[in-house]
Amino acid sequence: MSILIVGTLALDTIETPTDKAEQVLGGSATYSAFAAHSFATPIAIVAVVGRDFPEQYHQILKSIKLDLSGVEISKEHDTFAWGCQYRDNLNIRDTTFTHLNALQHFSPVVPEAFNNCQVICLGNLHPQIQSDTLSQVGDASFVACDTMNYWIQETPAELIQVLKTVDCLVINDEEALQMTDEFNLFSAARKILYLGPKSLIIKKGEHGAMLFVEDQVFIIPSFPISKVKDPTGAGDAFLGAMAGSLNYERHIGLDALKRAVVYGSTVASFCVEHIGPYELLNLTQSDITKRAKQFNGVTEWPVLSVLSPLA
Amino acid sequence: MSILIVGTLALDTIETPTDKAEQVLGGSATYSAFAAHSFATPIAIVAVVGRDFPEQYHQILKSIKLDLSGVEISKEHDTFAWGCQYRDNLNIRDTTFTHLNALQHFSPVVPEAFNNCQVICLGNLHPQIQSDTLSQVGDASFVACDTMNYWIQETPAELIQVLKTVDCLVINDEEALQMTDEFNLFSAARKILYLGPKSLIIKKGEHGAMLFVEDQVFIIPSFPISKVKDPTGAGDAFLGAMAGSLNYERHIGLDALKRAVVYGSTVASFCVEHIGPYELLNLTQSDITKRAKQFNGVTEWPVLSVLSPLA
Repeated sequence: MSILIVGTLALDTIETPTDKAEQVLGGSATYSAFAAHSFATPIAIVAVVGRDFPEQYHQILKSIKLDLSGVEISKEHDTFAWGCQYRDNLNIRDTTFTHLNALQHFSPVVPEAFNNCQVICLGNLHPQIQSDTLSQVGDASFVACDTMNYWIQETPAELIQVLKTVDCLVINDEEALQMTDEFNLFSAARKILYLGPKSLIIKKGEHGAMLFVEDQVFIIPSFPISKVKDPTGAGDAFLGAMAGSLNYERHIGLDALKRAVVYGSTVASFCVEHIGPYELLNLTQSDITKRAKQFNGVTEWPVLSVLSPLA
Repeated sequence: MSILIVGTLALDTIETPTDKAEQVLGGSATYSAFAAHSFATPIAIVAVVGRDFPEQYHQILKSIKLDLSGVEISKEHDTFAWGCQYRDNLNIRDTTFTHLNALQHFSPVVPEAFNNCQVICLGNLHPQIQSDTLSQVGDASFVACDTMNYWIQETPAELIQVLKTVDCLVINDEEALQMTDEFNLFSAARKILYLGPKSLIIKKGEHGAMLFVEDQVFIIPSFPISKVKDPTGAGDAFLGAMAGSLNYERHIGLDALKRAVVYGSTVASFCVEHIGPYELLNLTQSDITKRAKQFNGVTEWPVLSVLSPLA
């Protein structure tokens, strides 16, 4: 049992209405790996960093025993760098800069020990890199895949090729609507499943997440958080925790996927409470279990048939 | 057991990307009463209509056996008229006109038979009209109250007086944020409960609804509807179905309120499938029960403890 995470390692600059943090360790692989980390399993990252990637960040990644043999260190380029600024309500994010740097020259190499891992997370990257990764691994894995507006618009053919081969596409609501030219998420979901992925998760930020498997739908709200500090990486943390949870399932059917959505949402709720990804490293299994139980309490229905004349 | 609904009877003009309907029977009292109607109980409307209110609409209201003795018919003014236009995604609505007409001269008179009703719905009206209604009824009732941006901004003192006396405020997410100057709905909810209402329901349209009672939170998504035709009146239908459900509860505690949110959401989901309010009159208890069960299936969690190492 193990998890392979292909994604970005980045240096982030994050501005919120109350905080500013520069050169924070970021990127989809960071958030996903940190989130999966609490689930205690071997995890490998496949990514690239540049010559400027701080030694301190190498040390952090090593300290949590990630397999980093698939992390390329470019001697010619800097690390992928990205900046963003959140508006007052933290729901609208403006990208302030994107320097691809080493990411432009990245060819994924999967460590041999992870050729037969249980779960693969294809973070948001060029669909060709996602395909190249899949071509190096065995068939048995459960493959969860993210993408973004840019790839939907610029590389639709390559993206559709990837979608045909993955078990679960995990995207946000805007991406789902853009991908299908729809206004309604349920219509969009049906179109996306038709494109090939065996299941679909649509993340809606503060409004929760929806799972689609064949004609089944599972919808959960977000865990109530009154002090959101920084939504950065919450979607990647969702993906990582999902992988952490699926890694232990004997059979990945509807209930296993529902549990993955629950744990994904739960860990994402911890992620947004702090700026940057570090707080995820402090999470214990007991923290996660405790919050998942509270979360269940928030969503659990009363018996409908006792008092109502409708029953 | 009976329900009193104070609100508007209106002539609506509704434009959606695919339809246009003029002079439709509308208003908060119409949608709330039609929604409550399926729950088979005596219902009175307190409202005003004008000299132009079509005889055909009088007949519709009479045909479903509403007590209309509290509906004033103005001989000097026309009926409240309101027009709106929805944008492509049906989530953004522009008001095209508002003619208050007879509504400007409205003093509510509660029919004597409803002085001791079980549930009162104070539809979105001037807070003074809401207070005047409450001063005419007994204490035993459960009072649910709606409001809107306009009253929050223009008559805050009168609104706060009403809030101190009601059992449940039922508003949408924008209104909750505006009322409290917050960006976060959970922080907003805490502030609103502090103002006086014993409980609070925040409706989030396609994203569901949240119930707050003391320190308890209950959140449900919206029932999946892929063909939304017209969101007009969905919030009022929610309120009416809520009242219909609460009318049968022996004790209105947390579980009863949760059931009210479930039935409110379920009936609202039927409302948005058709333009105007008429389809609500075709709803049977069996339609509602059936959809509520499907809805439960969409939100029900799997057991978390069986397969996960976190338990």
